[in-house]
Amino acid sequence: MPVFLDSRDAGFEAGFSGLLNAKREDAVDVDDTVAAIIADVRARGDAAVIELTQKFDRIALTPDTLAFSPEEIEAECARVPAAERAALELAATRIRAYHESQRPEDKRWFDEYGAELGWRWGPVGAAGLYVPGGLASYPSSVLMNAIPAQVAGVERLVICAPTPDGVVNPLVLLAAKLSGVETVYRIGGAQAVAALAYGTETIAPVDKITGPGNAYVAAAKRRVFGRVGIDMIAGPSEILVIADKDNDPDWIALDLLSQAEHDESAQSLLVTTDEGFGRAVMQAVDARLETLERRAIAGASWRDYGAVVVVRDLAEAARLSDRVAPEHLELCVADPEALLAQINHAGAVFLGHWTPEAIGDYIGGPNHVLPTARSARFSSGLSVLDFMKRTTLARMTPEALAAIGPAAEQLAISESLEAHGLSVRARLERLNR
Amino acid sequence: MPVFLDSRDAGFEAGFSGLLNAKREDAVDVDDTVAAIIADVRARGDAAVIELTQKFDRIALTPDTLAFSPEEIEAECARVPAAERAALELAATRIRAYHESQRPEDKRWFDEYGAELGWRWGPVGAAGLYVPGGLASYPSSVLMNAIPAQVAGVERLVICAPTPDGVVNPLVLLAAKLSGVETVYRIGGAQAVAALAYGTETIAPVDKITGPGNAYVAAAKRRVFGRVGIDMIAGPSEILVIADKDNDPDWIALDLLSQAEHDESAQSLLVTTDEGFGRAVMQAVDARLETLERRAIAGASWRDYGAVVVVRDLAEAARLSDRVAPEHLELCVADPEALLAQINHAGAVFLGHWTPEAIGDYIGGPNHVLPTARSARFSSGLSVLDFMKRTTLARMTPEALAAIGPAAEQLAISESLEAHGLSVRARLERLNR
Repeated sequence: MPVFLDSRDAGFEAGFSGLLNAKREDAVDVDDTVAAIIADVRARGDAAVIELTQKFDRIALTPDTLAFSPEEIEAECARVPAAERAALELAATRIRAYHESQRPEDKRWFDEYGAELGWRWGPVGAAGLYVPGGLASYPSSVLMNAIPAQVAGVERLVICAPTPDGVVNPLVLLAAKLSGVETVYRIGGAQAVAALAYGTETIAPVDKITGPGNAYVAAAKRRVFGRVGIDMIAGPSEILVIADKDNDPDWIALDLLSQAEHDESAQSLLVTTDEGFGRAVMQAVDARLETLERRAIAGASWRDYGAVVVVRDLAEAARLSDRVAPEHLELCVADPEALLAQINHAGAVFLGHWTPEAIGDYIGGPNHVLPTARSARFSSGLSVLDFMKRTTLARMTPEALAAIGPAAEQLAISESLEAHGLSVRARLERLNR
Repeated sequence: MPVFLDSRDAGFEAGFSGLLNAKREDAVDVDDTVAAIIADVRARGDAAVIELTQKFDRIALTPDTLAFSPEEIEAECARVPAAERAALELAATRIRAYHESQRPEDKRWFDEYGAELGWRWGPVGAAGLYVPGGLASYPSSVLMNAIPAQVAGVERLVICAPTPDGVVNPLVLLAAKLSGVETVYRIGGAQAVAALAYGTETIAPVDKITGPGNAYVAAAKRRVFGRVGIDMIAGPSEILVIADKDNDPDWIALDLLSQAEHDESAQSLLVTTDEGFGRAVMQAVDARLETLERRAIAGASWRDYGAVVVVRDLAEAARLSDRVAPEHLELCVADPEALLAQINHAGAVFLGHWTPEAIGDYIGGPNHVLPTARSARFSSGLSVLDFMKRTTLARMTPEALAAIGPAAEQLAISESLEAHGLSVRARLERLNR
């Protein structure tokens, strides 16, 4: 049974802390296996990737068939029904428009001594996106990872998408095509991450790897971090809905279930100012769980990690939400802007009654790759900035160096870094001649 | 002997690749030790921190003396000579001014269907800065880590700075005071990182940990990553200088040595269009190495990892520099702007003859915490953004949901996520009634 808590009850703090600290993921220790796979790919390149793909995905590849050919991609894309194609195209257009407004600006200025300061942004050279195979092979994730990279101006954008037993998801290939992906490799697991990070005879290395994956992929990303950039290591999905009594319990129930159906470890929380409404939502969830296709998964998630929390007022709801720092936060209240002003930590906020979280997963425009497991306290969803880097710039004039150089020299002496000081001193002496 | 390469020579590519791939750091495996320390601090809190500090730093603390008292900080700061204080204050002022221009902007707009989209930035709640003890206890690093956090609006900013054998660096405390740090704990190592990440009875946990440290600190940061945010794991420092013949060899020699003196693993590279100038710089380095205070360190770094590379022209220099993606890049040429336009990957660029890299370490304004080990290909130096996070916002209207909702529903069906689709469908049905 999901937890039903009331903030006025004596045991509330213990119950709420329990929700926060629920260990929703059993970290499988695959680190040794992954280390061996990475070493093998580094040592043997294509041959290792091909062998491992034969072993794990049961398909026989050659260096020539590691990637889908343009013809194969065209043929697969042609299989996508028109309605799905149109939906994917609308999603791509909207995601692109949103992310285009994220392009950062370069800046240059002169200080009071005439020194020029500033910075310049540039794209990473090459990015590799990981797309899981099987059930979790989501075309929407392709758009959400590839479009920010494309908008950033990344020159080479490739995908690794395993095809276990040769099963291909044509929507994934269409999404790749819509987002400017150059090459799609039909490889996965730690071997794909290793190939992207270190390169093989056929696969050129990239600078940044993003995208979701299983425990092996996550462990491999952690291991290659530093050699290449990675995005966050995503945990199970979560949603927190703050709702007053003026909501349709069935809408809110479906919003909660749309997280719960992702994964048995997903967490769906309702925080409401009205106990009766909270009970009505629980009933609505149960009713929907009778027929939902993924009721086994959604039911387990709701039973093990779901909760309804009754609070005194919306201010208290905001405080509790900040303690959760939810990945997704719906504000289903009369004045969502006033409530938003009280929220500090959330990955994505969905305002008002007409913004179900699923809109954000697909078509709203903002990214659906968001910080999980309370990490919205300190991190952000995926964006164009994740595929760019900033170079800082400084240009002293003789006058500026004369003005501020002596202080640098002083600090260098304080830190016992003599050559630092001398590199300034030598120049100042020229000026004093 | 440092390497002397000419891009016209047959063996050039092998020699240059050797420079790129020189393994400059022996990764000490301290992971098991660190895991045990973190577990101990999580289990026993203050008691563990105090015991470990006694063991590693040979000082006896109590929960009351874990942090410096305001009186102690005042007394230590009063010991700082006026010239050093003035230099540190000027540095703080300039670093603050530079970073204030990095504050990101919130954004909101309406799309063609009346849906409101955008994002909002906010500071992380609390940040902890690690400041090494002993020789590498640099007040400039305190400013470079704390001021961006302060500018970001971080509410609680604390420092962990070990004091082995009770030795305190008053400049570190003054730098902390100048940058709005609330509390300075005299603890270090993995135990300090664990205390910051998980909290103890005395030390409240933080959301983000930044700052340099030894192998134990780096391993601890890797381990707590996810629980809290961390900055990059910094490797040994490096500089690449691109210089034409119209430079003073002694200036360039000092610039190279100002990296080399940091660390025996530091790397200093000169890329020049003039062989004679390159040889003159090598001589100037040797001459300076005869008297430099840190000649043992700088000499070893220069001998093992230093290099002079002669190239045909500046375009080739830019291409080679991009392969290195140096942490620090000096452009000591007649037209540094033209050369800058050809550079893609560098942490910080210093333009022209009057901008020795040391200016950037202390007083230029840009941050000196920069990507090392070729990671400037995909990452940036520390900035205000590292202490902020972005929450994306979306608010549909009934009209907007009617326009784009069906596409979301279609994609949900394609991905077999029924509840996602139903959460949209239920709302659309209300509109159709």
